[in-house]
Amino acid sequence: MDRHLDEITKYIHDHIPITFHLGVKVKAYDGRSVALSAPIAPNLNHRNTAFGGSLSALAILSGWALLHLKLKEQDMRSRLVIQKSSFEFSDPIDSDFEATCSMPSDELFEKFLRTLKKYKKARIQLKSRITSASGKVGLHEGTYVAVIPGESETV
Amino acid sequence: MDRHLDEITKYIHDHIPITFHLGVKVKAYDGRSVALSAPIAPNLNHRNTAFGGSLSALAILSGWALLHLKLKEQDMRSRLVIQKSSFEFSDPIDSDFEATCSMPSDELFEKFLRTLKKYKKARIQLKSRITSASGKVGLHEGTYVAVIPGESETV
Repeated sequence: MDRHLDEITKYIHDHIPITFHLGVKVKAYDGRSVALSAPIAPNLNHRNTAFGGSLSALAILSGWALLHLKLKEQDMRSRLVIQKSSFEFSDPIDSDFEATCSMPSDELFEKFLRTLKKYKKARIQLKSRITSASGKVGLHEGTYVAVIPGESETV
Repeated sequence: MDRHLDEITKYIHDHIPITFHLGVKVKAYDGRSVALSAPIAPNLNHRNTAFGGSLSALAILSGWALLHLKLKEQDMRSRLVIQKSSFEFSDPIDSDFEATCSMPSDELFEKFLRTLKKYKKARIQLKSRITSASGKVGLHEGTYVAVIPGESETV
C-alpha cells in the first residue's frame, strides 16, 4: 500500500462523496499521469456490464485529479470544474476498470499555468483512457477550467 | 406519489445500483419525454456544487430510461448501451438537478425501430437537458445502441 496514494484517495472520497460509492481508488501517480480504478460490482448495469455513467464519472474525475495534483505541486489554489466532456465507448466491460489521464505537452501545461497566473482563469484539454482487464474500452476528452478565487470569495 | 413512476425508479435502482447512491428518481414520463431528478447532497464536489460525473451519469441515464420505456411499450427486448456521450456544462449548480430526455421526431424513432427489427441492431441519438433551480446548466447528447440478443444469448 502506498500511503501517499491512500491519502489522495481519502481526499477524493471526503470531498466528492459519490466517489466512495463508485469505489474509486488512486492506483498510481508519477507526476505526469494519474490512474484511478473502480471495481465492477458497485458499477454494474442491467446487463451485468459497467454502467456508462460510472465510466464517464471515473474519466471526468481522472482529469480533475491530475490537475488538482499538478496545481497543488505549484502551490496554486484554484476552483477546478469541467466545462465539456466527450466520451466514446467501444465494447461493454465486465471487469474492474481504470481511467488514466496523462499530461499534455509541457509547453501546453506551462501556457495553462501562465494564463492562470495572469488572468486568474485558464482552460485546458485533457485526454483519459479507460481500460479494463479485457483491454481498451473508451477514450474521454475533457475541457477543464481553473479559476483562482478573488479575495471576496471563500477559497 | 405516482405508483408507475415509483416502479420505474425501483427498476432502475435494482438494475443499476449506483443510481440508488446518486439518489435518482423518475419524476415524470408522458410517452415522449422522461425527467429524472437527483438531490444535490450525495452529488456534491469539493466546491459544494454538483460533481460533473454525477451530472453526466444522470444525463446518460435519462436517454437510457427513455429508450428502455419506449422499447418496452413496443414489447421489444434489447440490450441498450451508450456508445458516445458528449456533455457541455455551463455554470456550476448548487441545488437539486434534473435531466430531461425527449424523443426525436416520430420519423427518426420509427426508422430506428424498423432498423432494429430488420437488422437486430440500431443506433439513435438523443439529447437531454440538465436543469436546476438556478436554470439550465447543461446539454447532453448520447448515441445509444440497441441490440436484440440472438437465440444463443441470454436475454
